Amino acid sequence: MPADGIARQIAERLESASWIREMFERGLRLKAKLGADQVFDFSLGNPSNAPPSAFFDALAEVAAERDPGRHRYMPNAGFPEARAAIAGYIRDEYGYPLGDDGVILTSGAAGGLNVALHSICDPGDEVIVLAPFFPEYRFYIEQAQARMVLVQTDENFQPDPEALAAAITERTRAVLVNSPNNPTGVVYTPERMRALTDVLARRDSDANPRYLLQDDPYRRVVFDADRPCAPGGWYPRTILAASFSKDLSIAGERAGFIGVGDGVPQRGRLLEALTMLNRTLGYVNMNATMQRVLTRCAGAISDISAYRANRDLLCGALRKLGYDLTLPGGAMFVFPKTPIADEIEFCEILARSNILAVPGRGFGRPGHIRISFAVEPRVIERALPGFEKALAACRTVPGGA
Amino acid sequence: MPADGIARQIAERLESASWIREMFERGLRLKAKLGADQVFDFSLGNPSNAPPSAFFDALAEVAAERDPGRHRYMPNAGFPEARAAIAGYIRDEYGYPLGDDGVILTSGAAGGLNVALHSICDPGDEVIVLAPFFPEYRFYIEQAQARMVLVQTDENFQPDPEALAAAITERTRAVLVNSPNNPTGVVYTPERMRALTDVLARRDSDANPRYLLQDDPYRRVVFDADRPCAPGGWYPRTILAASFSKDLSIAGERAGFIGVGDGVPQRGRLLEALTMLNRTLGYVNMNATMQRVLTRCAGAISDISAYRANRDLLCGALRKLGYDLTLPGGAMFVFPKTPIADEIEFCEILARSNILAVPGRGFGRPGHIRISFAVEPRVIERALPGFEKALAACRTVPGGA
Repeated sequence: MPADGIARQIAERLESASWIREMFERGLRLKAKLGADQVFDFSLGNPSNAPPSAFFDALAEVAAERDPGRHRYMPNAGFPEARAAIAGYIRDEYGYPLGDDGVILTSGAAGGLNVALHSICDPGDEVIVLAPFFPEYRFYIEQAQARMVLVQTDENFQPDPEALAAAITERTRAVLVNSPNNPTGVVYTPERMRALTDVLARRDSDANPRYLLQDDPYRRVVFDADRPCAPGGWYPRTILAASFSKDLSIAGERAGFIGVGDGVPQRGRLLEALTMLNRTLGYVNMNATMQRVLTRCAGAISDISAYRANRDLLCGALRKLGYDLTLPGGAMFVFPKTPIADEIEFCEILARSNILAVPGRGFGRPGHIRISFAVEPRVIERALPGFEKALAACRTVPGGA
Repeated sequence: MPADGIARQIAERLESASWIREMFERGLRLKAKLGADQVFDFSLGNPSNAPPSAFFDALAEVAAERDPGRHRYMPNAGFPEARAAIAGYIRDEYGYPLGDDGVILTSGAAGGLNVALHSICDPGDEVIVLAPFFPEYRFYIEQAQARMVLVQTDENFQPDPEALAAAITERTRAVLVNSPNNPTGVVYTPERMRALTDVLARRDSDANPRYLLQDDPYRRVVFDADRPCAPGGWYPRTILAASFSKDLSIAGERAGFIGVGDGVPQRGRLLEALTMLNRTLGYVNMNATMQRVLTRCAGAISDISAYRANRDLLCGALRKLGYDLTLPGGAMFVFPKTPIADEIEFCEILARSNILAVPGRGFGRPGHIRISFAVEPRVIERALPGFEKALAACRTVPGGA
């Protein structure tokens, strides 16, 4: 019997998501009461940049074409020219061989991950996720009838190959990695990524394949010289799921893709499954207009320097105040330790200064908070006294730092 | 253990979809061999109309705004002004009370159906589908871990309330209806729709809700005076899933919506579940650009008269030749009886005249074929000799009409 007219399993999921909703609703209440500019909202991962002018130019061109036939269904994997443009982008950016037919255009990276998980998981299969992790992974995995198995990263949020090795079972179908990472902003080092894929390679076979599922929307939102590594270059059974949401600041446009390199074993069959599920899960395709826009501007990128400046401003100031944090190399998040072990309590203390952050336990790591720096710099500047006050408040409580 | 690197259950689904692929690939081979204009392809449900000029005008306006903040994430249910515009459209078109918050913007009607089925079905629940039916319903239902139960319509493809009553069990969660119908083009009569909901109403309760799930993308593609009926006006527990794909000829843009009327019991909880699943299934939202376009032109419509003219031309000619068919009142399909019982064999015979149609058994009704008239009129005209020849060929075989 259902609960309140909805599926029982969905009612349970709504329950488990309710503290995020709680935080969101508190934010709305605070903003309604004090005015939006009096609330320092660091809780959202919504890109704050402008899209590049190449994006706007391409959209105007597409709109001017008034082509009656280009808004209809196309092959489910996407317009051939859009797949070719994005395949070229992947080859340039990741550096491994990937034919145009290895690209399937999806509804964001989230759509791509759902499609990939459905393609490879039978009921009861296991997918390993490295914590801290994006909490919606649990839903993606359970929707594919698989089971999420959490493996903690180390104290600097780098993968722990031994912990991974211990977690692999006969039912392990994939390891899901996200670097630059949400919520920590950490970029996994090439050494750790290699150690991780070495563990996978020892257990991989055609009869019992172990996929590396790479969720990669933040690849080009990085602050240091080197690009994140591209494990698909050495671990063949890699499925890339990514999007232009963050680097082009178009998250609402649902412009994502799956990339399957030429070296992926049983590649043709995998592409068949991915293409079918892109259709039957109802995405059907990335919307036609964005496909046509990206055919023109897949290589464009927003000005990332604003995020880098925000990272330097926020992380420098928090460290000076006495916060313990691992410097994020990319994305738009930092994940500091909280001065008291109960980070939900610490979020309450921050909220007294109208600062909204997200407790770490939702990401699989209590004792931390996620702070998004996809905000205007003045929001950071004006919030610093509140961060200082919250730290001071903890020094006066038992067990405080 | 997986099969060929993909999930075993997905390998089975690929198998069951393979005759459709077979047909599609034969079409490609024929077109490559003979040239596209020598093949009469009636196999696709892709709108052949041009979008209305209001659509192109709205897209140009949206593109000209170059607004840096309007391509980002918005609330998952959609931009408030887009939801309001589409709620207004639903109220005008369906005539029952539905607040703006009762609209959730989705990736096409297919995305909306997947979201709705996940919201209401627990594993093992049953969803009744009226045959002939769109074959992907089976996948949508199985992806939500529910079970499809087929109930045949009568010989004119109208719902059979007694057959429906006999099929309802304790686990029946919904009846999925599609009128105008793919593949028959038939519009369910108000009398039959009322009889159908009467059956549901007798078994509906808050403890064991029975949803009417209305898949309605063809509502405005109708050829006779009256609009199809709106069962949400009298059967409260109705969930509407529809799109602008067919009436605006923008199927590739993934512009769909769910409508939940004010009278739906336990409405708030249902909207919560629908909104969460729109996010966690990875659609996240209808793409931002289409939301902004439809805010401006939700009431616009393509010129439907071309489809009506095609229906009249094709159905008139086929009847004259001796084909037995039920006249479609809407959509872009006719579903004639085949002159021999084995409709796959009849499709082979048609293919000798380079005519592509789809066998009925995939839609749950053998002995019929689906012919899409979303084609240029000259394709119909040039194919008529082939339709005549195929009929004559059957008259000479044993068991032929």
